[in-house]
Amino acid sequence: MRIPEILKRAAHLEGDDPAVTFDNVTYSWSDIEDRAARTAGVLAEMGVGPGDRVAILALNSLDQYTLFFAVPWIGAILIPLNWRLSEAEQVAVLEDCAPRVLLADGPNAGLAAKLAAECASIEALVHADAGDPPDGAASLHAALTSAGRAGEAGAGDDDVAYLFYTSGTTGKPKGVMLTHKNFYVNSLGGLLSYNLRVKAPTLMPGPLFHVATAMRVFTAAMSCAHTVIMRKFDLEELFRNIETHEIQNLSLVPTMIDMMLRHPRLHEFDLSSMRRIGYGAAPSTPELQERALTAWPEVEFRHGYGMTEAAPLIAILDAEDHTLTDQGRRRMRSVGRPLAYVDVSIRDPKGDEVPRGGSGEIVVRGPNVMKGYWNKPEETAAVLKDGWYHTGDAGYMDEDGYLFVIDRVKDMIITGGENVYSTEVESALQEHPGVAQCAVIGIPHTSWGEAVHAVVVPAEGAQVNEVELIAHCRQRIAHYKCPSSVEMRTEPMPLSGANKIMKNKLRDQYLAARAGE
Amino acid sequence: MRIPEILKRAAHLEGDDPAVTFDNVTYSWSDIEDRAARTAGVLAEMGVGPGDRVAILALNSLDQYTLFFAVPWIGAILIPLNWRLSEAEQVAVLEDCAPRVLLADGPNAGLAAKLAAECASIEALVHADAGDPPDGAASLHAALTSAGRAGEAGAGDDDVAYLFYTSGTTGKPKGVMLTHKNFYVNSLGGLLSYNLRVKAPTLMPGPLFHVATAMRVFTAAMSCAHTVIMRKFDLEELFRNIETHEIQNLSLVPTMIDMMLRHPRLHEFDLSSMRRIGYGAAPSTPELQERALTAWPEVEFRHGYGMTEAAPLIAILDAEDHTLTDQGRRRMRSVGRPLAYVDVSIRDPKGDEVPRGGSGEIVVRGPNVMKGYWNKPEETAAVLKDGWYHTGDAGYMDEDGYLFVIDRVKDMIITGGENVYSTEVESALQEHPGVAQCAVIGIPHTSWGEAVHAVVVPAEGAQVNEVELIAHCRQRIAHYKCPSSVEMRTEPMPLSGANKIMKNKLRDQYLAARAGE
Repeated sequence: MRIPEILKRAAHLEGDDPAVTFDNVTYSWSDIEDRAARTAGVLAEMGVGPGDRVAILALNSLDQYTLFFAVPWIGAILIPLNWRLSEAEQVAVLEDCAPRVLLADGPNAGLAAKLAAECASIEALVHADAGDPPDGAASLHAALTSAGRAGEAGAGDDDVAYLFYTSGTTGKPKGVMLTHKNFYVNSLGGLLSYNLRVKAPTLMPGPLFHVATAMRVFTAAMSCAHTVIMRKFDLEELFRNIETHEIQNLSLVPTMIDMMLRHPRLHEFDLSSMRRIGYGAAPSTPELQERALTAWPEVEFRHGYGMTEAAPLIAILDAEDHTLTDQGRRRMRSVGRPLAYVDVSIRDPKGDEVPRGGSGEIVVRGPNVMKGYWNKPEETAAVLKDGWYHTGDAGYMDEDGYLFVIDRVKDMIITGGENVYSTEVESALQEHPGVAQCAVIGIPHTSWGEAVHAVVVPAEGAQVNEVELIAHCRQRIAHYKCPSSVEMRTEPMPLSGANKIMKNKLRDQYLAARAGE
Repeated sequence: MRIPEILKRAAHLEGDDPAVTFDNVTYSWSDIEDRAARTAGVLAEMGVGPGDRVAILALNSLDQYTLFFAVPWIGAILIPLNWRLSEAEQVAVLEDCAPRVLLADGPNAGLAAKLAAECASIEALVHADAGDPPDGAASLHAALTSAGRAGEAGAGDDDVAYLFYTSGTTGKPKGVMLTHKNFYVNSLGGLLSYNLRVKAPTLMPGPLFHVATAMRVFTAAMSCAHTVIMRKFDLEELFRNIETHEIQNLSLVPTMIDMMLRHPRLHEFDLSSMRRIGYGAAPSTPELQERALTAWPEVEFRHGYGMTEAAPLIAILDAEDHTLTDQGRRRMRSVGRPLAYVDVSIRDPKGDEVPRGGSGEIVVRGPNVMKGYWNKPEETAAVLKDGWYHTGDAGYMDEDGYLFVIDRVKDMIITGGENVYSTEVESALQEHPGVAQCAVIGIPHTSWGEAVHAVVVPAEGAQVNEVELIAHCRQRIAHYKCPSSVEMRTEPMPLSGANKIMKNKLRDQYLAARAGE
């Protein structure tokens, strides 16, 4: 169940077939396999061996794609860095994982040089892009022209192959250790759940540093499907790629679907090849689901719920459940049912399972669950107990086994002894036409413990105030759930690398502002 | 990826749902999980521990089904014995695997008592059936009433959980060591390839000692599907079960499908619930496929190709390829394409891969491949080389990746330097209306090395002779492939436990007869 075997099988069975298109060049499975073996050879020449870390800071590219196979090929560990992070955040990640080699593409070369100078562990800086390398960097492409194929290290199924740093909403970077087995099993689960068994042209618009995109590297290789890699997300390029390559499979976040559907030139492109859209990584809305199902009735939509620590799939809402019937609408508010190898338990704060239908923390177990956080035994022990991973998400499971995610456990507000799920309050606020964006957090309150506080970005040109919004909520949800204070904000919300609102930052900002009063 | 986890997950997520119906009683997933834990407790009380062997000689039953989970639960190894074997063959198997405990049902109790007396390793004989145990046997059911749940042994993914003895066509019993991982991966592959992801009522008419039936224990538990266990195959009971339980999923051998379609009272039963029929374990014919597809157009047919050593799936011919178009008819002669995690190579006698399209031995690799043969390092080394399992089947793969099985390598005849596949000659013979059954073997020949020899059972009342049959073949296949001698036979062919003609016995009989001339 080693990752390189997935590639070797594809190259062996479908060697001449297209594997990857990048920058308008198409590579066969044999090309990719040979490139991976030689990229591994280049790294081995630099002294990289089993257990060593190799980081890459790059937009999506052929090189980055290839490293997903080349690094585990020699038993080393790949860290695909999130290029959206600040320099200070990159340093924190690199100091945590201490790679021997840092690769970067052209757009990230400048930052990479600074990082290489700053981080003592980095022995080699490698330019993984066309053109001449900047000063102090070796050229991967030049080295590849003469590199030999590396021998495959006999890694075990449970050896770590990747560290994915959680962009997190809590600040401190944590390297999620994912093993060969974690991704191998998830790939089988992905083929099964997303109906990817059939070899079909696939578009990769998401960033490879995100596990939801990275998993598509392996599902595509398992089904020998042709993947078109986009350097980064661009709407018109996405449309053109679908049209040109007759793309059938896509993995998107809800925002991308929304942007596609709202695009004024949507109908100028032929998107009729689309067959399977997997979406996830962020909640969708019933309104968006309805628009998507109506616009593209030929497409099978599937929602994937998961997280980096689960490599990533936990539950899938299947295509059959994406209907505009009453049952379909109800089910589309869920994240679907657990994958065939994932067990799910809902736990109260003491760690006891609650009866079916009750809400609590979503806790999961299966061969896809991470080995732990890199160099963080305490943080690992806090979330991995008896093989059960504590997701930090709050939710419940209905009688039919559909899982509903309510909120992050830590975003749950306890006010006067009552639990308030921030997402429920946010949903109520969102229904007000004057609200463009909102986030609900708990703030300290002397008598209630916490009070419900809303941060709202008004819609452009809207006139809306605190009193009106509180009154609006009281018509929709229980009094105790309604915000006791609403803060209007014109600057954008602080977002994580995964585009999630960082509520801890909102809380910090709120407390700092109050301290300054 | 431990087998007991599959059951624990099903009991946890769908505890109240029906898991198994046997003898008109239905048990929930919680019932089965508890019964497995307590059956494990009974065995542990008898001193069975990690690595110990436990054998069962029984028709299909709830007890046997439960043992598939209970034995690996405590890290022990289950051997489901083939009740069709002779006493001498059973002794050979039991002496090879040396179980501490032998369980048997009522119909096999007499033979089991003899075997327990004969085999020194057997410390306990256990009656796994209703009613009083025979003398010298303990009662599993009595023990279960007071047994506690065993703790689960922390087996590793690669620990052996089962020995399946190959009925083989070569005589000597070999215990195929299948690990937790082998079956876990195969179960995911089964869900994926047979479209068993959806929880649907499943009928188990085949014998649990056969790996193709046993795998359905795990696929059903992974999808929490309800399985109706038949004690043994009976056509009318099969029909009644489908009708009563609205069975959607079935796993059948081609002979069963043929018997169903030919049954005079077929149309008296409501079989309209059938959705997915997986078939395999023996070659089908285009004529049978056509009849089946025509009779049941609503059913998705899938052919599985595999073997015990591959736990068992290697390739699947998908439902979309079961059509009566020209392409469909061509593809239905193949065994389909390799599963997502199975690599397939076609090798010449020197072990070198032949170019795509060329024929040779089918050699496979993947996490489903057995650990080896129990206590047989030489036999293991002969078939497992660098992780590649040499199947002994001859075949080729076409440009689209469809695998065609031609023959057993050892049934290939080399005559005057030419390779003759016995199945090709048998197909030609079968076209003669006077031939009920036939087998083609190689016999020693002084100048050709081997000569092609046919053994034929004539159809009832048919008048057919050697000259006529040879002439019939010459009209159909190349001269050198035609039998040079034909032996008429009235007694039935010698069959293996898997209902395959034992060609080695035919060869022995031929040589003995010639020696006696």
